[in-house]
Amino acid sequence: MSKFWSPFVKELVPYVPGEQPKVANLVKLNTNENPYGPSPKAIEAMRAELGDNLRLYPDPNSDLLKQAVCEFYGVQPNQVFLGNGSDEVLAHIFHGLFQHDLPLLFPDISYSFYPVYCGLYGIASAPVALDEQFQIRVEDYARPNGGIIFPNPNAPTGCVLALDAVEQLVKNSPDSVVVVDEAYIDFGGETAIALVNRYPNLLVTQTLSKSRSLAGLRVGLAVGHPDLIEALERVKNSFNSYPLDRLAIVGGAASFKDREYFERTCQLVIDSREQLVAELTQRGFEVLPSAANFIFARHPQQDAAAIAAKVREKGVIVRHFKQPRIAQFLRISIGTPEQNQALLDAL
Amino acid sequence: MSKFWSPFVKELVPYVPGEQPKVANLVKLNTNENPYGPSPKAIEAMRAELGDNLRLYPDPNSDLLKQAVCEFYGVQPNQVFLGNGSDEVLAHIFHGLFQHDLPLLFPDISYSFYPVYCGLYGIASAPVALDEQFQIRVEDYARPNGGIIFPNPNAPTGCVLALDAVEQLVKNSPDSVVVVDEAYIDFGGETAIALVNRYPNLLVTQTLSKSRSLAGLRVGLAVGHPDLIEALERVKNSFNSYPLDRLAIVGGAASFKDREYFERTCQLVIDSREQLVAELTQRGFEVLPSAANFIFARHPQQDAAAIAAKVREKGVIVRHFKQPRIAQFLRISIGTPEQNQALLDAL
Repeated sequence: MSKFWSPFVKELVPYVPGEQPKVANLVKLNTNENPYGPSPKAIEAMRAELGDNLRLYPDPNSDLLKQAVCEFYGVQPNQVFLGNGSDEVLAHIFHGLFQHDLPLLFPDISYSFYPVYCGLYGIASAPVALDEQFQIRVEDYARPNGGIIFPNPNAPTGCVLALDAVEQLVKNSPDSVVVVDEAYIDFGGETAIALVNRYPNLLVTQTLSKSRSLAGLRVGLAVGHPDLIEALERVKNSFNSYPLDRLAIVGGAASFKDREYFERTCQLVIDSREQLVAELTQRGFEVLPSAANFIFARHPQQDAAAIAAKVREKGVIVRHFKQPRIAQFLRISIGTPEQNQALLDAL
Repeated sequence: MSKFWSPFVKELVPYVPGEQPKVANLVKLNTNENPYGPSPKAIEAMRAELGDNLRLYPDPNSDLLKQAVCEFYGVQPNQVFLGNGSDEVLAHIFHGLFQHDLPLLFPDISYSFYPVYCGLYGIASAPVALDEQFQIRVEDYARPNGGIIFPNPNAPTGCVLALDAVEQLVKNSPDSVVVVDEAYIDFGGETAIALVNRYPNLLVTQTLSKSRSLAGLRVGLAVGHPDLIEALERVKNSFNSYPLDRLAIVGGAASFKDREYFERTCQLVIDSREQLVAELTQRGFEVLPSAANFIFARHPQQDAAAIAAKVREKGVIVRHFKQPRIAQFLRISIGTPEQNQALLDAL
């Protein structure tokens, strides 16, 4: 604490990302990265951009990437916002769309960055409990609110809300913005982007870090009504004109254009997930139904923190959250069949 | 305007960056980019990183790059903060260090993003007029304030404040943070990083976009007392855990390690600048003394906006600010000798 700090800084409780270990040869199943690399066409596009052109600023509007997103989803450029990872996109959403008198609603168990953003921007929030099966109950959100946000599939549970339930939730709060955070949607959910033309209060966020294997590049996006996008552009252009570098713009665009690679690698992850779920169930684990590239599992007889520590000793990292209701669960990212086997061996 | 916006959004007056034209073959002297490419070693480091590793998140602390900055400047890792371009670093500074009761001071003519940040974070500010020769007067800042920020060399004037004058200014306001924004320092100024160990209220920002030719990569930094850096880390970790991508981290680090290339290309720009100043002076222009990679010039008989429009027709872009006191000036980035000649020919 220092007299130089803005007053809110001392109250901040920053987000803690999953460990990025600096030793090699660990089987890293702790941060929901994709076990397969990015599209070779994305790599090729970045290689072509890598040179003297880096002396020039990027296009501040990242039009090339915006266009690729528009073609993929059949939306218009003024319905798309881009940022330096979906965490930056979410930060601008909290700042630009969630500062209202009524509290923001989000699940009691969800992405742990949401309360951090609330602290950063002084936003009142009210957690809404998941039900006993760790599912979102749509009717619990049908009450006065200053905004709603939830991951779909939810993190860290992996449970997905069906599109008609999402639509009902959006319909129930026509006077506030509902953000569906679809970081993991491509592994088994149905995107709510299909609904944006009908609901001006709906905003959908996605990331290229998971299904497009570009966590190392930092690209995220939001799709919604032009009025919502305009708020985000105004905040972005008052914060940093060029959040996406030249390599991220061309790499992200090429990734969206390579639909075949994207679909094939998503399917590989889904297949691996189903196999891992079967194996863990056979070993006595309870696994929540997952539509993500991770699973959330507990063992009725063994302590989760102890399991995490044990498999870590054997070179496999999974993630454990010391948090009410879920302290006996482990979040396990889906690896290649070989990585998943390494986990099973370690168990 | 929309009922969904946070109230402050409708009052925002976003920053307008210099044009990034999409037609080729223009001589671009409008956004202070370096006419020479980045260090070949930086390109090589990025090429080596470009592959399947991009599926993994970057190091959230960018330790490799932080270490390179520390070696270059002889400072410690807890004195260094890194961000997605110095614009992001500045945004976090305004948010985390400038929200106080007294107004923030900055020159009436300086980087036009400063008042934009004030709007974004609700910070009161008071412009301090440059003198008649467009110089910063140190004594004008010796009054109660909630913080001070100024570019050194100043933008868009190019005028530099000597290190002893910077030190006096910092000494005069021991109870508030003084930020020296050194985007252009390597083209003729002396960095105030030399002073950070003696003044806990001094913070120096720099960018890799100018002297290191990496505008397209988005890397900026701040150096100062660990308490100031901690405030920025707390804000950053409540906003976006991974602002620097894997390519920016390795490319930025390699750039700092290639001191020979850096010094050589800076000297080329300085030599070109001196030659361009001589040529323009000969043609009747008045040119402010510049220590930057741009010059600020006016012609006593010709209208600045008209000149800008004319040279644009001939394929050369320079920047004109419609702003009191400087509406008759043009800001001209220093190009290669050939680019500068193209400007002279167009004139």
